[in-house]
Amino acid sequence: MKNSVPKVIVVGGGFAGLWATRALAKCECEITLIDKQNHHLFQPLLYQVATAGLSAGDIAAPLRHILREQKNVSVRLGKVVGIAPMEKHVTLDDKTELDFDYLLIASGATHAYFGKSEWAPHAPGLKTLDDALNIRRKLLLAFEYAEASTSQVEQDAWLHFAVIGGGPTGVELAGTLAEIARHTLKNEFRTIDPTVAKVRLIEAGPRILSAFSADLSNKATKQLESLGVEVCCGTAVSDITENSYSLGDKTVPAKTVLWAAGVAASPLGKLLDTPTDKAGRVQVENNLSLAKYPFVFVAGDLAGIQFDGKPVPGIAPAAKQMGKHVAAEIQALMVGKKPSAFRYRDFGNLATIGRLSAIVDLRGFKFSGVSAWLFWLAAHIFFLIGFRNQISVFINWTWAYCSYKRHARVIYGASKDKPG
Amino acid sequence: MKNSVPKVIVVGGGFAGLWATRALAKCECEITLIDKQNHHLFQPLLYQVATAGLSAGDIAAPLRHILREQKNVSVRLGKVVGIAPMEKHVTLDDKTELDFDYLLIASGATHAYFGKSEWAPHAPGLKTLDDALNIRRKLLLAFEYAEASTSQVEQDAWLHFAVIGGGPTGVELAGTLAEIARHTLKNEFRTIDPTVAKVRLIEAGPRILSAFSADLSNKATKQLESLGVEVCCGTAVSDITENSYSLGDKTVPAKTVLWAAGVAASPLGKLLDTPTDKAGRVQVENNLSLAKYPFVFVAGDLAGIQFDGKPVPGIAPAAKQMGKHVAAEIQALMVGKKPSAFRYRDFGNLATIGRLSAIVDLRGFKFSGVSAWLFWLAAHIFFLIGFRNQISVFINWTWAYCSYKRHARVIYGASKDKPG
Repeated sequence: MKNSVPKVIVVGGGFAGLWATRALAKCECEITLIDKQNHHLFQPLLYQVATAGLSAGDIAAPLRHILREQKNVSVRLGKVVGIAPMEKHVTLDDKTELDFDYLLIASGATHAYFGKSEWAPHAPGLKTLDDALNIRRKLLLAFEYAEASTSQVEQDAWLHFAVIGGGPTGVELAGTLAEIARHTLKNEFRTIDPTVAKVRLIEAGPRILSAFSADLSNKATKQLESLGVEVCCGTAVSDITENSYSLGDKTVPAKTVLWAAGVAASPLGKLLDTPTDKAGRVQVENNLSLAKYPFVFVAGDLAGIQFDGKPVPGIAPAAKQMGKHVAAEIQALMVGKKPSAFRYRDFGNLATIGRLSAIVDLRGFKFSGVSAWLFWLAAHIFFLIGFRNQISVFINWTWAYCSYKRHARVIYGASKDKPG
Repeated sequence: MKNSVPKVIVVGGGFAGLWATRALAKCECEITLIDKQNHHLFQPLLYQVATAGLSAGDIAAPLRHILREQKNVSVRLGKVVGIAPMEKHVTLDDKTELDFDYLLIASGATHAYFGKSEWAPHAPGLKTLDDALNIRRKLLLAFEYAEASTSQVEQDAWLHFAVIGGGPTGVELAGTLAEIARHTLKNEFRTIDPTVAKVRLIEAGPRILSAFSADLSNKATKQLESLGVEVCCGTAVSDITENSYSLGDKTVPAKTVLWAAGVAASPLGKLLDTPTDKAGRVQVENNLSLAKYPFVFVAGDLAGIQFDGKPVPGIAPAAKQMGKHVAAEIQALMVGKKPSAFRYRDFGNLATIGRLSAIVDLRGFKFSGVSAWLFWLAAHIFFLIGFRNQISVFINWTWAYCSYKRHARVIYGASKDKPG
């Protein structure tokens, strides 16, 4: 009897993988959820960890804790290094082979440097908690090294912060960085004046937040500028080194460059014996399965799928919807039902810029400023539900926003980094 | 005029250094506070970070934030590599030389492995936030690797936790570890049963918590045993490797060994041209200055000083008192007053064992159990005052204690560690 229970492997405990797993709670199957990390991450607030407003534990919860009551799941910490869709097994980095009857790959996305991988060490991106803590260390140390510096030129370079990419993450990072320099660190230094720090947001396209209308995008630009961010659109970065970045022929001395420009799908997509697009997203059928292997599914940022003629965006609500759809498709397959197409329900789009400012587009109903920010805050607090400790996060946050203080300004391993 | 303001250098932003700095707030002088880390750490709760009950940001606050209003202080992130008491300057690792008229060295203590430095990588100690996060990762990964292990022998080794040293830190770690195994992780695994994990506390002396009376020490042993800790006294560790530890001739397979046995004073003590004791503590005059250099002071764990015929203990209240005393002595020297001896006021001694259990000795008034634990909790919450965010810590903590949940169970850089 036990052998007849179908085996489901889910790779990735992000929004797509976790929501698929949960949606299979009542299904008679054995699920193995595999992730490289021990935690699910509430990625929409990752920039707050990078900018010391929240602690890592505020936005991450252990996967096995979240799923402890769901008896048909076992959680496995490990890295998938091989997938054999035909033979129906995956291989982990410790050489374990795990068999499956149904497979969901939801391993998300990573940074892409458009072929310039030599930029990566100088311009870290923001996808994991380690990335966030790395960026936090880099930001806080920049002010420390500026304070200790005896050369004006070097001091200016330490106080020049460039954020590459004008999508939501770039906007959040640039806005928060400007607030930190202008408010949080005020009065804390004796040699430098942190409020003169330059924060520049660089976007190759004609405007920031291109997923929004031109009107909202302009409002966001104005809000950023009022925070002290210099917004440079229509300019692509041509080089990044340890001490500078270049726009065209012009080289700008800057010790801190953050990368929020390019996203590439997880490399696991290449193991599926199925075409991928330029960004590495796997070409899936309209029910999110693979054409060659109808029992293998892809969901979340790794899935290349269109709906209503537009690509489904790489955001949390879309990933959750895909995860749930895959769970339904797996159950349909088990009982021999026909596949049904994934339908993306677009609830709208929101982006935050800084304290008390955001832009919201709820399917054409657009607003910005304080009301948009309150809406953004409410939505994020609401979706953190299921995470341990909303009250505490809410208090930390309200406190941080009201006082401009950021409690998580801890540099780990400070002594490991040396100024360049 | 400006040149005539005396320069004070304080090395170390722990309890001694920070309290000395604060006590000089109204003194007309220029203070430079130098620390390797950007934060002051509330060390009495560090074990809670190591055991995932609190986040790093809950017990650490940036030094320059704490001191932002004190205009006569500048905070400098850096490591002191040279001290020239005669020439009155210190040298930092970036080769900066800083002059002083008065110097306080309060760089604390570090782990000591009794000459067995090869044990260090296998048995991490707990002194800094990096140590705490390292231990947290080690503990959480041990359960993950046990779950993934296919050999019973290996599984048992992953589920054997040994804490070396029965002082307050060892007792706190062992007690909390037992709680995590018995309660926090219950129901979260599918292959292993975390409640069978073995937690062993190993003390070379005849009893644990030797700073307390035999009576209280016995009570603590009983409380630990009721939590499931095996307490082994009168046994010294003879070897530690990656996969085992040895007691005498007997080798016990265990993948997780934590070190809470030996403390050595900071190596800066050796740079002072003054005798040190075997633990590296600097021999100071009764006012905490050096005999040869009356304008150089040592305070906190680095100071080798007796009071009432007993060494002053290496605990936070003693360090704070020494810091304040040094501030007063520096001010006395400035106006040509005579030195006065340091007097240690002993308010008592307390140690916590686990949830709802602790022992307290208030100068002979002794109690243990729940009342002692509530006293311990109140004292620690009270002394966290001055830290940003007691309410949030209090909520996190109450929550953790009531539910046995530990919210900060995040493994950073999980993929870097491989099972041995």
